[in-house]
Amino acid sequence: MKIGVIGAGAVGLYFGSLLQRSGQDLHYLLRSDYEAIRTNGLKVHSVNGDYQLASLQAYNNPADMGQADLVLVTLKTVANHCMVDLVRPLVGPHTMIMTLQNGLGNEELLAAAFGAKNILGAVTYLGAARKEAGVLEHSNAGKLDLGEFSSLGVSTRCEQLAAIFVDAGIPCRPIADLRRQRWEKLGWNIPFNGLCALLNQDTAQLLGHPQTRELTRKIIIEVVTAANAQGLQSPIDIEKFSSGLISYTSKIPPYRPSMLVDRDEGRAMELESIFAVPLAHARNKGVDMPLVDMLYAELAGSETATLRN
Amino acid sequence: MKIGVIGAGAVGLYFGSLLQRSGQDLHYLLRSDYEAIRTNGLKVHSVNGDYQLASLQAYNNPADMGQADLVLVTLKTVANHCMVDLVRPLVGPHTMIMTLQNGLGNEELLAAAFGAKNILGAVTYLGAARKEAGVLEHSNAGKLDLGEFSSLGVSTRCEQLAAIFVDAGIPCRPIADLRRQRWEKLGWNIPFNGLCALLNQDTAQLLGHPQTRELTRKIIIEVVTAANAQGLQSPIDIEKFSSGLISYTSKIPPYRPSMLVDRDEGRAMELESIFAVPLAHARNKGVDMPLVDMLYAELAGSETATLRN
Repeated sequence: MKIGVIGAGAVGLYFGSLLQRSGQDLHYLLRSDYEAIRTNGLKVHSVNGDYQLASLQAYNNPADMGQADLVLVTLKTVANHCMVDLVRPLVGPHTMIMTLQNGLGNEELLAAAFGAKNILGAVTYLGAARKEAGVLEHSNAGKLDLGEFSSLGVSTRCEQLAAIFVDAGIPCRPIADLRRQRWEKLGWNIPFNGLCALLNQDTAQLLGHPQTRELTRKIIIEVVTAANAQGLQSPIDIEKFSSGLISYTSKIPPYRPSMLVDRDEGRAMELESIFAVPLAHARNKGVDMPLVDMLYAELAGSETATLRN
Repeated sequence: MKIGVIGAGAVGLYFGSLLQRSGQDLHYLLRSDYEAIRTNGLKVHSVNGDYQLASLQAYNNPADMGQADLVLVTLKTVANHCMVDLVRPLVGPHTMIMTLQNGLGNEELLAAAFGAKNILGAVTYLGAARKEAGVLEHSNAGKLDLGEFSSLGVSTRCEQLAAIFVDAGIPCRPIADLRRQRWEKLGWNIPFNGLCALLNQDTAQLLGHPQTRELTRKIIIEVVTAANAQGLQSPIDIEKFSSGLISYTSKIPPYRPSMLVDRDEGRAMELESIFAVPLAHARNKGVDMPLVDMLYAELAGSETATLRN
């Protein structure tokens, strides 16, 4: 299967490299790593064992890639204003487009340009980062759940795609309700990305203080309450989900969420897809998220200052 | 009049020095400035004109001061666990005790120790800071409103005390409802001290971003709503007060509130008197302040980290 990876950062290189090793025909749109990877290939330092790809089909212009069977969109959502133009050259009449991005609103942008029935979404769980050009550090997890954007239930093509990922050694489930999964991930992303970035704390510090631990719990509850107003196939159990998420996160090693890393390194944070769009979806269903709204304002207000300085 | 100043930092030295210049008998309890001021006196660089006091009656032990007619309590509220012990040696049968501290709960602590009828409170508006030992920088304002703790209405002694301050060149009004004035000041202190400290921004940066400006407005409204549940002599007009406060603060030069300065310099923030006690008073009247509660948690959670590092 010819697979194009649009915006091959840590997420795109991790899943792409595993698919390539399993024999798929991978094509990567790169930016900062382009020269290094064309010359030296890719090194992956992984908790599951290191590996190396001597050669990747690397591009710096999507027009050179040709039409693909599957496009994996792994751009940071802060680059979404470029997304449709970057994806378009790969899209033919039978191309499936799957976004692996964070938050809400990404499938909608792709659907408006390429038709809702061609769009799939994957919710990823991965701890990985590029350290130097051409080198990927994989520290944690690395699974994904994938589903249809425009229909409920597990489709045949989602089952087939999940099998391709599983063949590549990637834990992957086809899911019946993509929106529910997206909101469940927001239940983690909104409090932990948001508060850790705001307070410059890792997850252990955040949960180690009784007041911020309680605040985290309240924010999770706000998010799940908004999720349950979206007409999900089955509602999320608020109490079970919130206490489970806090208990899970208390047990993993101290973790610096991507938004904190972005802020630390002076990059734009994914505020639109993780905060603004979910807030708008909640409001559309008549649900306020006052604490989420406050956290969004604090991050947005201080991002301006950070990027300005 | 023999006046003891307990905890003579910027506030105590500013008002004390003006009272001393007007002929009152001032006695200062000092800590970090004690040696410098005993040796060289006090220099004040003031927007109203510089001045100097060659000699101050300075103490490092309140037991040496003797009973006073009036005690001005100007300790940072983070030192309130020492307050009663520091004040006690100055208190005789006719001593008036006036706290000039921030937030709520200070009069109550003094009343429990010395009797409610002896307690007065002053709400201060002053921009001043000690730069080096024995030198005070006065940058802005410098007025106070004073009232009775245990009764409504303007008392004769408040009128007399206000006259003493006015004689010293300090704009001062006797007020009928101290609690209302305390809550009005919290309407400024909670959002501006809190958000500026959290986001490391001055007032102009905070109000310069539409989202944090709107958040500031929402927090003011929460505070005033809680204030109006306290049985004030007359309610605060929520709309007029909140828009007036934002408009006023937009017009003054960019200002770094004391809590931001404290945090910057690694000192404890006045979270108890500015956040915890007002939250408890609101809750006692059945009023929640969810945004104030969140801001308190964010500050408390990150203070631990700051003081720890």
